[in-house]
Amino acid sequence: MIGDSVTDCGRAQPIGEGLFNALGNGYVSLVDSILTVLYPERSIRVVNMGLSGNTVRDLKMRWQRDVIEQKPDWVSIMIGINDVWRQFDCPRQKEIHVYPEEYSATLEEIIVQTKPIVKGIVMMTPYYLEPNREDAMRKRMDQYGAIVRDIATRHQTLFVDTQEEMNGILNHYNANAIAWDRVHPNHIGHMALAKAFLASVGLKFDKIPKE
Amino acid sequence: MIGDSVTDCGRAQPIGEGLFNALGNGYVSLVDSILTVLYPERSIRVVNMGLSGNTVRDLKMRWQRDVIEQKPDWVSIMIGINDVWRQFDCPRQKEIHVYPEEYSATLEEIIVQTKPIVKGIVMMTPYYLEPNREDAMRKRMDQYGAIVRDIATRHQTLFVDTQEEMNGILNHYNANAIAWDRVHPNHIGHMALAKAFLASVGLKFDKIPKE
Amino acid sequence: MIGDSVTDCGRAQPIGEGLFNALGNGYVSLVDSILTVLYPERSIRVVNMGLSGNTVRDLKMRWQRDVIEQKPDWVSIMIGINDVWRQFDCPRQKEIHVYPEEYSATLEEIIVQTKPIVKGIVMMTPYYLEPNREDAMRKRMDQYGAIVRDIATRHQTLFVDTQEEMNGILNHYNANAIAWDRVHPNHIGHMALAKAFLASVGLKFDKIPKE
Amino acid sequence: MIGDSVTDCGRAQPIGEGLFNALGNGYVSLVDSILTVLYPERSIRVVNMGLSGNTVRDLKMRWQRDVIEQKPDWVSIMIGINDVWRQFDCPRQKEIHVYPEEYSATLEEIIVQTKPIVKGIVMMTPYYLEPNREDAMRKRMDQYGAIVRDIATRHQTLFVDTQEEMNGILNHYNANAIAWDRVHPNHIGHMALAKAFLASVGLKFDKIPKE
Amino acid sequence: MIGDSVTDCGRAQPIGEGLFNALGNGYVSLVDSILTVLYPERSIRVVNMGLSGNTVRDLKMRWQRDVIEQKPDWVSIMIGINDVWRQFDCPRQKEIHVYPEEYSATLEEIIVQTKPIVKGIVMMTPYYLEPNREDAMRKRMDQYGAIVRDIATRHQTLFVDTQEEMNGILNHYNANAIAWDRVHPNHIGHMALAKAFLASVGLKFDKIPKE
Amino acid sequence: MIGDSVTDCGRAQPIGEGLFNALGNGYVSLVDSILTVLYPERSIRVVNMGLSGNTVRDLKMRWQRDVIEQKPDWVSIMIGINDVWRQFDCPRQKEIHVYPEEYSATLEEIIVQTKPIVKGIVMMTPYYLEPNREDAMRKRMDQYGAIVRDIATRHQTLFVDTQEEMNGILNHYNANAIAWDRVHPNHIGHMALAKAFLASVGLKFDKIPKE
Amino acid sequence: MIGDSVTDCGRAQPIGEGLFNALGNGYVSLVDSILTVLYPERSIRVVNMGLSGNTVRDLKMRWQRDVIEQKPDWVSIMIGINDVWRQFDCPRQKEIHVYPEEYSATLEEIIVQTKPIVKGIVMMTPYYLEPNREDAMRKRMDQYGAIVRDIATRHQTLFVDTQEEMNGILNHYNANAIAWDRVHPNHIGHMALAKAFLASVGLKFDKIPKE
Amino acid sequence: MIGDSVTDCGRAQPIGEGLFNALGNGYVSLVDSILTVLYPERSIRVVNMGLSGNTVRDLKMRWQRDVIEQKPDWVSIMIGINDVWRQFDCPRQKEIHVYPEEYSATLEEIIVQTKPIVKGIVMMTPYYLEPNREDAMRKRMDQYGAIVRDIATRHQTLFVDTQEEMNGILNHYNANAIAWDRVHPNHIGHMALAKAFLASVGLKFDKIPKE
Repeated sequence: MIGDSVTDCGRAQPIGEGLFNALGNGYVSLVDSILTVLYPERSIRVVNMGLSGNTVRDLKMRWQRDVIEQKPDWVSIMIGINDVWRQFDCPRQKEIHVYPEEYSATLEEIIVQTKPIVKGIVMMTPYYLEPNREDAMRKRMDQYGAIVRDIATRHQTLFVDTQEEMNGILNHYNANAIAWDRVHPNHIGHMALAKAFLASVGLKFDKIPKE
Repeated sequence: MIGDSVTDCGRAQPIGEGLFNALGNGYVSLVDSILTVLYPERSIRVVNMGLSGNTVRDLKMRWQRDVIEQKPDWVSIMIGINDVWRQFDCPRQKEIHVYPEEYSATLEEIIVQTKPIVKGIVMMTPYYLEPNREDAMRKRMDQYGAIVRDIATRHQTLFVDTQEEMNGILNHYNANAIAWDRVHPNHIGHMALAKAFLASVGLKFDKIPKE
Repeated sequence: MIGDSVTDCGRAQPIGEGLFNALGNGYVSLVDSILTVLYPERSIRVVNMGLSGNTVRDLKMRWQRDVIEQKPDWVSIMIGINDVWRQFDCPRQKEIHVYPEEYSATLEEIIVQTKPIVKGIVMMTPYYLEPNREDAMRKRMDQYGAIVRDIATRHQTLFVDTQEEMNGILNHYNANAIAWDRVHPNHIGHMALAKAFLASVGLKFDKIPKE
Repeated sequence: MIGDSVTDCGRAQPIGEGLFNALGNGYVSLVDSILTVLYPERSIRVVNMGLSGNTVRDLKMRWQRDVIEQKPDWVSIMIGINDVWRQFDCPRQKEIHVYPEEYSATLEEIIVQTKPIVKGIVMMTPYYLEPNREDAMRKRMDQYGAIVRDIATRHQTLFVDTQEEMNGILNHYNANAIAWDRVHPNHIGHMALAKAFLASVGLKFDKIPKE
Repeated sequence: MIGDSVTDCGRAQPIGEGLFNALGNGYVSLVDSILTVLYPERSIRVVNMGLSGNTVRDLKMRWQRDVIEQKPDWVSIMIGINDVWRQFDCPRQKEIHVYPEEYSATLEEIIVQTKPIVKGIVMMTPYYLEPNREDAMRKRMDQYGAIVRDIATRHQTLFVDTQEEMNGILNHYNANAIAWDRVHPNHIGHMALAKAFLASVGLKFDKIPKE
Repeated sequence: MIGDSVTDCGRAQPIGEGLFNALGNGYVSLVDSILTVLYPERSIRVVNMGLSGNTVRDLKMRWQRDVIEQKPDWVSIMIGINDVWRQFDCPRQKEIHVYPEEYSATLEEIIVQTKPIVKGIVMMTPYYLEPNREDAMRKRMDQYGAIVRDIATRHQTLFVDTQEEMNGILNHYNANAIAWDRVHPNHIGHMALAKAFLASVGLKFDKIPKE
Repeated sequence: MIGDSVTDCGRAQPIGEGLFNALGNGYVSLVDSILTVLYPERSIRVVNMGLSGNTVRDLKMRWQRDVIEQKPDWVSIMIGINDVWRQFDCPRQKEIHVYPEEYSATLEEIIVQTKPIVKGIVMMTPYYLEPNREDAMRKRMDQYGAIVRDIATRHQTLFVDTQEEMNGILNHYNANAIAWDRVHPNHIGHMALAKAFLASVGLKFDKIPKE
Repeated sequence: MIGDSVTDCGRAQPIGEGLFNALGNGYVSLVDSILTVLYPERSIRVVNMGLSGNTVRDLKMRWQRDVIEQKPDWVSIMIGINDVWRQFDCPRQKEIHVYPEEYSATLEEIIVQTKPIVKGIVMMTPYYLEPNREDAMRKRMDQYGAIVRDIATRHQTLFVDTQEEMNGILNHYNANAIAWDRVHPNHIGHMALAKAFLASVGLKFDKIPKE
């Protein structure tokens, strides 16, 4: 599972797997623990390769070493938050912005390179914990999410709409109850991400209606 | 939710609730996040009052201030690991051991005091991540677990058999994959505890069989 | 100048005045330095009594010691952000929320107590760096800002509309360029606060239109 | 904006621009915040490339990488304090002294190299917070300031007489109220530097005479 | 004396010999002090070359530099705990497991290389502080211990059955009184290891029967 | 076991017993581990009550709380090094010197108070790792050692001549190989102290003559 | 020897005497070492009771406990730098300024109280490492120095003109070579203070003219 | 001035000269401050090139870079303590011992190389703060001191008998009052070293006999 700080969450370096909380304390760790608790008879191996601050441009530079050479069966990608965020928090440093065209091309390039050599790919959208769809950054993030959806559709990968999942919580909780900065979620937001990811791979992690 | 270090997990002091990961990073935080993600429309309030190293003797001393005065609707208790552990890791310091008689009497006293003023109580057994039922400490821990079950039955509280839940994992994973010391679990063990707790309060947190 | 973390900014304890950056690194320090640079011939004394996390309820409890006994000529108050924020980031802990009624009554009580014994009072509104006026927390913050304005009007104190000042920046910059959490501003946001404060006391700190 | 520790002030390395107080906490940050607050509609980009302890000799060694390759529109230089100071605080280590001849030649070389490739240059004098013009180090510093003025005049760059600005404060405040060591200013001294810089680029940052 | 963390115990790097507790605080230090106190007239030199986390695979990689080039008279080896442990605490990372075949071959290769150039070799078994011989990890550890015994017999080196020595204590103390994780012993476990080692080299470190 | 820094060695506060190296890393820990390894069938409880810097004057002040109220079966005392040392390293601060008369009277007072309520007392002399018996501080230390011997004889307590034990090592090793400051021993010196103590209580901890 | 930070220099608390650099690393330590090296046969006891930041107002508050109760034979006082400095570096906080009248009265009160119960008093002037006698703070400091001289003369105590001693160095070295802040001297300035103090008590610590 | 830890004393790296206590806090700093205070009109430059733990073998390896290339006028050397000490505190590690033959040859080689290119050399003996001349380590140190004296005599360098100087203090103070480990002196011992060094270069730093 690769991505930015939302994925990283203090995972072990250089490989996020093993003893001593090597998976970090975010959704990757939750995915691993839920899979293990519900399916202890399977031996599913989860590795966290997220890196704080990464954009898709950074992912591409380390893709060979950090993904291809790790020989994963499955790859999960959630990238794009920093690609968008820098456009809004560092508006004057345009050279570090990753605009939609570059984002789309780079992400697709990665998928094309990876698809043939893995069993499956999970593409997760970036998100912004802003309920107002007309907010400039939320709109931009939705645009990037749409790019992810488009690539996922065209390349027939699994797809997770993290924004949609987060929206479900935002209907009941203010964004501040999940993340002051609307990006780095607390335990509730990470659980929502884990739940959405698991649903995409067929684990109905949900309440069972009372009979 | 009150208990020892398995509950505590670095929660905020003196009250384990609020911003900045106040619930700690163990099963209490997982319970809170799963409840919130699955039932965002309810406003369930979870408070972590665990303290590392506590025995039931310690709980009793701080029960008035840390439980009664907090006016909880529900109380969850998981205590007993240190009551047993000290008998085995500090065998010569008998004055810090809490033997079954004291354990049983003190725990029941707490339940009797609390039952009338709350909506419900969840009694969680202590556990020991040792698969061999004939192991001396595992046997002793099972004895304490039976005391919890007995009190829960007689006083009609909810009951969680954490040992049973852990056993389910130990059928597939060696104890070392959950906790080197067979007590302080990693993310997998805490998820198992959360799952067992949630089942006791009626949340079927489990995989849904494929149709 | 008293308030919450936006005022505090690491000021010296217990009195925020003197050597070694005692005024903290926020708008209070900027107010002091601009006043001194522009009016070096006057000896204006600025003291920072802000405390992180404070609500108006906290201010009241320490008002006697931290304001009255300091015998200030002028008092500046910016409070209310935490009064509102806790309602949104800790929605379940209602006992720590300070609702409009309490906010209004407490703030007015403070003003009534203080007005007769100082030369003047500057009442600064709380703010929220959210451009969308329909956002729930922004609306609530505007409600508190209106309470400040009302009290200022009725008691004839100086008044600073910090939200209005911040809005001026938000017309050109995304909120993320000022504060990820929309509350704790960077150097730009603090300069805006200083500028607004200074305008209220008659210092036209502004660009001079080109002739 | 490049210089020594008065410019540096803890800026980010290797490039002093971006999130997390990357501009440091000195006059550079003040210049950025005042420009942004007064002219939010312009997108002026400020980068801090100061390095503590630098002399003009050090600037020259890193000029290609730290200035030319950054492709700035404008360059601001304040250097010379350490060139002079070492002559007085380390009188015996003559090999680290930068005497007027070297200072003048090196500074001019930098200006000649840079002028053709930028829109403009702001040359700021070094200063010494010593009111007595007959003081040996003040005299020497004035000599270096005169060199800056001379180069600025001959090469038609903007010019800031920081010593003159500081003198305005020293007329009313003892040097100890700005800097114990007469070099590293507190918030007041940095505001004076920012004010002087801004005046040089046409921003009349000043009090407006009462009508 | 070379091995893993049980040997290392914080010894000096890169050579574990000399002033300032260079031998670490485990059995190596005890061996040195007992030898020195009982035989002060001999000048026996003890060097600690243990490294935390090492398997026999790691030992082989550093054998030339850390053993051969040190030109020891005697070599003591205790390795294998991590070779086994990773199979149980990281069951999914099979590439870091050292299975019996590799363990046996590598250890024998080391012995064959070293035997001709030293006066003697002490081969110490790995151990696991688990009294139940049917426990899966204990069984595996016993298997590795048998490999050590086999190699020691065939190559006529000295042999220390650390598991046997530990068993003597486990008859009277629960494993938790020696090591929570059943691997890293406290002062009692290290003294037992020292006693077993010394017995192998002919020092009857034992109680004298009362006449 | 009570005493000064040679006994203390970083033991747990306020009671030196229990988990996490509570006995410190000196001779007390060695006594505990050797007793446990050689006599695992007995459950001998060792508690370290040493405090760095203590003289007999300090011991007396805390004797009631730190010894009598702990209800020990046996008490071991090694005190006097600081009583003597301060006379030589702080010769001008005579008020902190404990001279022979006070030392003797205080120590005897403690023994008289304690003898009737314990099973036995072990009196250990102070020592100085100086081989030259004519050295002023060694002579003074020998004088204090003689006082201990005298009290031990008259009150029929067990007696350990630590100086004599240390002398055995000093015949073969320079004092610098045991302690740079001739007081705080390394692992070798502590083992010698443990050996001497154990001999006094009847444990022949020694090499067995080769038949 | 009592005073402010120039005396304190990190001395031991609460009493500046004994092992481990208890005298601090300033002139007090130099006085002690020179006296001891030149007069080893005398046992002169030096105690450092300086406290950073102190004014004569602070000295008076702790005089009973920190001087009278220590029963010194001789007392050395160097106070006044902070009394003056605060007037210049914190000009607006007049309540912490100690003006000449209070300084003179308090210092004399201390002398009157102490003179009868000690063998002698050494009164050392405050100083300011500013060569320009017309500098405002230097003039003020000279005024305080004159007060010290006057009291010393009238009460017939020993007197040390530290300003005069420092002037001797300032004739050859710039103040920056002794102290950037003109107050806290480096090793050279402290040696000058020690030399001046020793001269006052009759130790001609000086170079011997070549014959 | 070059040597071992007695010279080093925390000096600046790589060159021990300049601001911020660059000379360390030992005799080198004292030499510098006394020279400056007594002869402010001369500009004598002192550089500290000592390195903790060095033997003459280490000095030789860095002599070219740390002495020759620094182009000193005068060189002061105090080396040999570690050459001897390791023979006594690490008796078994003979490869790190520097015996008299190597010490003498190496030191002479250094002197021969250096003499022609400097104005003068001061050779300081090593010392051991042990008053008993028959002590084994003192005897050995005296032997190394004699080697220094011999080389100094034959090559006509200045010579400082530090042992003799220390002996003068040891006549009145116990070694423990200067250094617990008899090597690393406190402020008194460093002052004695400075005094002895200064005497060798003709500065009669001494008390003046009363007329």
